[in-house]
Formats: sequence, C-alpha cells, structure tokens
Amino acid sequence: MQTEAPVWFALLRDRLCAAFERLEDEAEGPFAPEATEPGRFVRTPWSRTDHSGADGGGGVMSILKGRVFEKAGIHVSTVHGEFAPEFRAQIPGTDQHPGFWAAGVSLIAHPWNPHVPTVHMNTRFVVTAKPWFGGGADLTPVLDRRRNQEDPDTESFHAAMEAACRQHPGQPYPRYKAWCEEYFHLKHRNEPRGIGGIFYDYLWTEPDTDFAFTRAVGEALLGIYPEIARRNLATPWTEADRHEQQVRRGRYVEFNLLHDRGTIFGLKTGGNVASILSSLPPTARWP
Amino acid sequence: MQTEAPVWFALLRDRLCAAFERLEDEAEGPFAPEATEPGRFVRTPWSRTDHSGADGGGGVMSILKGRVFEKAGIHVSTVHGEFAPEFRAQIPGTDQHPGFWAAGVSLIAHPWNPHVPTVHMNTRFVVTAKPWFGGGADLTPVLDRRRNQEDPDTESFHAAMEAACRQHPGQPYPRYKAWCEEYFHLKHRNEPRGIGGIFYDYLWTEPDTDFAFTRAVGEALLGIYPEIARRNLATPWTEADRHEQQVRRGRYVEFNLLHDRGTIFGLKTGGNVASILSSLPPTARWP
Repeated sequence: MQTEAPVWFALLRDRLCAAFERLEDEAEGPFAPEATEPGRFVRTPWSRTDHSGADGGGGVMSILKGRVFEKAGIHVSTVHGEFAPEFRAQIPGTDQHPGFWAAGVSLIAHPWNPHVPTVHMNTRFVVTAKPWFGGGADLTPVLDRRRNQEDPDTESFHAAMEAACRQHPGQPYPRYKAWCEEYFHLKHRNEPRGIGGIFYDYLWTEPDTDFAFTRAVGEALLGIYPEIARRNLATPWTEADRHEQQVRRGRYVEFNLLHDRGTIFGLKTGGNVASILSSLPPTARWP
Repeated sequence: MQTEAPVWFALLRDRLCAAFERLEDEAEGPFAPEATEPGRFVRTPWSRTDHSGADGGGGVMSILKGRVFEKAGIHVSTVHGEFAPEFRAQIPGTDQHPGFWAAGVSLIAHPWNPHVPTVHMNTRFVVTAKPWFGGGADLTPVLDRRRNQEDPDTESFHAAMEAACRQHPGQPYPRYKAWCEEYFHLKHRNEPRGIGGIFYDYLWTEPDTDFAFTRAVGEALLGIYPEIARRNLATPWTEADRHEQQVRRGRYVEFNLLHDRGTIFGLKTGGNVASILSSLPPTARWP
C-alpha cells in the first residue's frame, strides 16, 4: 500500500491538473481584465529534512494561475521521519514509536468568478504504529445568496460525495457529512466555512476497501467540481460580488491559519511552507 | 491602579485618535484614487459575557478608514471573569484562583502609502492572583528596501523606545528590544515581522514606576509614529510598491493568526471577535 497509494495520488493529481487546464482552455469568459490567457500548472519539486537531520521525503507542488482560476494548487507528497516529542501525544500510534510515513494529494482552487465556488479536497495514507486512510472534500460558495443547501451546486456536490460513500459498503455518508460540518467550522465566528461535503479519518477496516473508497472520493471530486465550475463560468459578476468574494476569502484564511489541523501541523513539523500556504487565497479583504 | 490605568488607557486612545485624524486632515497626497476624503474614527462599544454567563466587562472599538490610513483601529477594553480550566496553566497566578481582570489599549494602523510603515502598540494592566503591566510597540515597514536597521524610520522608532526606557531607571532597553525581536518573528518562515521595537510583560516592581513606564511607552508611540508617517506621506508609490505591501500584509495576517498570543487567546476566551480581528489588514495577497 505504501507503494500503491502514492502512485495513485500522483495519477489523480495528473487527471485533476488536466481537467483544470481543460477548463482554462474551454472557458469563453467573462474574464477578469488582468487575466485573459489560459493558465497552465507549474510543477515545483521540494524535499524535506526530518527534524533529526535525516532525509524526510518530499513532494511536488503544482500551481496554476489562470483566467478561470486566480490560483489553484494541486500537491502530492510522500514524507517520513520521526515526530518531535511535543506531537507524539496527539497522533494515534506514536506513543508506541515516533516514526511516521504519510502520503497524500491535496487540492485548493480559488476561481476568479465569484459565482464559481472555492473547493478543497485532500486524501492521505498515514502509517505510524498503525496505518490509516483519511480525507475529504468541501465546497465553499463565496456569495451569501448561494451559500445554502438548496443551491444546485450544493445539491450536486453533496450528491457526488454521497454516491462515493454509497458505492462502498460500510462507509457511513451521514457520519462523514456531519464530521465535515463539524471540522470546517469557524468556531471563533460560529459560522461554517462553506456548504460542507465529507470528512473521514483513521479509516482502517480492510486495506483494499479503504483504499478503494479513498480513490472514489478523489474521483467524485474530479467528476463534480469541473462540472460545477463549468455551469457558472459564463455568469457575469459585479464589483459587489467580487468584494463579497474577497471578504469570504478572508474567512478562508482565518480557518486555515487558526483551525486547520493540516496547516498548523505542517508548519510546526517542518513541512514545505510554500505548498502548505499555497492554500491561501491570492487576494483577501478584512474591510 | 484598577481605576487609574483604564482612565489613562482611554485618555491615550483619545490623544492617538486625535493625532491620526490630524494626519488625515493635513495630508496633501498622493492619495489612492478610491479614498480622497479625510477619515474619522467611528466608535463602537461592546460588552462581554464571561464563560460562566456573568457580566465580563467590555470595551470600545475605534476604527478609522481614511485617505492616509486604509484601516486603523485603536481599542480600549476592561474585562474580568474566570479563566476556563484549559487556560489556567498558562497564566501566572491563575493556579491559585481562576479570576482575572485586565485593561488595555491597543493600536494597529495599515496606511495606504507603502512608504508609511504599519505600526502596532499595546499596553495592558492585568490582575490575577498577581498584578502586572505589559506592552510594547513594533514597526513594520512593508517595502523590502526599507526593512533594515539603517533606515531613518527604523532609527527614529528605536530611539523613541530607547528614550522611554532610559527615562525609567530599571527598565532594560536591550532586553525589551530583544524580547520584541523574539516575539514578533514568523517562526514558520524564519523571518521577522518588521524592524522591531520593544516588548515587555509580567512587570511588577513598584506599581507607580511600572505604570509610569507603561504610560511612557504609549507617549513614545504617540510622539514618533505620526512623525514617521508625516515624513513619508508625500512620497509617490508604484503598482509594484503596492503589490509588495499587499504581500507583506499577508505575512502580517500569518503572524497574527498563527503566532500572536493576544489574538489566539482573545478568540479562545470569548473576546470581541470584531475588535480582535480588526488588526487584520484591509487587503492582502498570497500570490
């Protein structure tokens, strides 16, 4: 699985990048005046030194700045090492031995058009004294009038995630949906990040089944998000819409820096700052 | 002191607001095209309910959006209550009893002109089983070519803080300067927030002396920052300067949300979200 999972994460990355570049090519506008050319992903490999000084693996960042996406990042990494003592209490299996190995793929896209929702997806395979899969995907419409459970984008996104769960017996969609709502919540403002999605972690029932489900989550995102983007790309936006998007992006920053476990954990354990913080929006406002 | 300190914090707030409004009035440009009218502070009182449900004090936010300052916040608060159990270990004196009382004044200013540095100042009087003063001020030039120890703004800012310390026997300027450099450091990027200043905490030697020093820190900021702003106000800026400012503001957000004790502590203890996060810049970029 430690061979297979990273291969699949990289393959999903390739397919996601291709789908995003296709959107860049096919879009007919309206475009922001400062970005009218179709964007392409630029790949940057990085390597990691473990806190002990040993080789700690690495990854590849892929960043696109285009005319549909103001910024999109799709990253893969395969890292290993030993947890620093202060983190051992927080991670299952590390009380027994401090070694870890983790591979994953993550995606965050910040579109120009405020009608196109922001999206995040991450799936990972982690091995400490115990192995497990985790991941999820959540959608963040940025216009208040579209941040509700009745919007067609919301309904399609939930339907895609529900289908991924339903096709894999034993994967409880209602529980993963509730976990997502609980996790992607700005506690300090008591408001949700977006309209939800699914979130799961510490999944280790039968390896092939858990891996198949993890792949299905990635495929579900690949199936539904480009479709949601395509539906909204031609909708013109106003200055007020763009302002609302910028404020909502500020909230996205607050979530990622104050609450997101992956971001905080990555920064504290010597992860690659550029790829961790590439999740932050290209522009944001706190008026 | 619990009567005197809040009175002085409010008086300093009034004088700082007046000095900032004078800058708004007297400035002759260049201005950003979207903001050419002199700004005025708008005051908003807020009150706080302690986690036990009891009255927990409150404060007054003062926010200015003008033509010199894209956003400036000067806030006073006087709060009291009991620390929730999870915070007791972190605060001196609270192992003996969980009650606290705290008053303070804080200022953060984000100017339009990238040649005018961002500034932060905070002074506070805290009473748990022990009383103490704390505070400091630090300057953040946003243009790389001016973020150095030889720049005239850096030199004047340090000189003003050094004078405040020197006039109060027993206040060790080198230690407070070093504390500031250590505190206002983005560990995840291993880079300083700005050019430094001073920082002190847990100060309780002789109450009148400590209070006099705390007042001097506020007076020093009042004396030097408007002068630094005035020096730079007429310097024209380019699009590239503005872009650099936006990126530097992104780093300011990272510091406040990832590292600043006051921000994180305030958000976790039910502080006023609007005034705590008014420190965030009006606009920022992560390109």
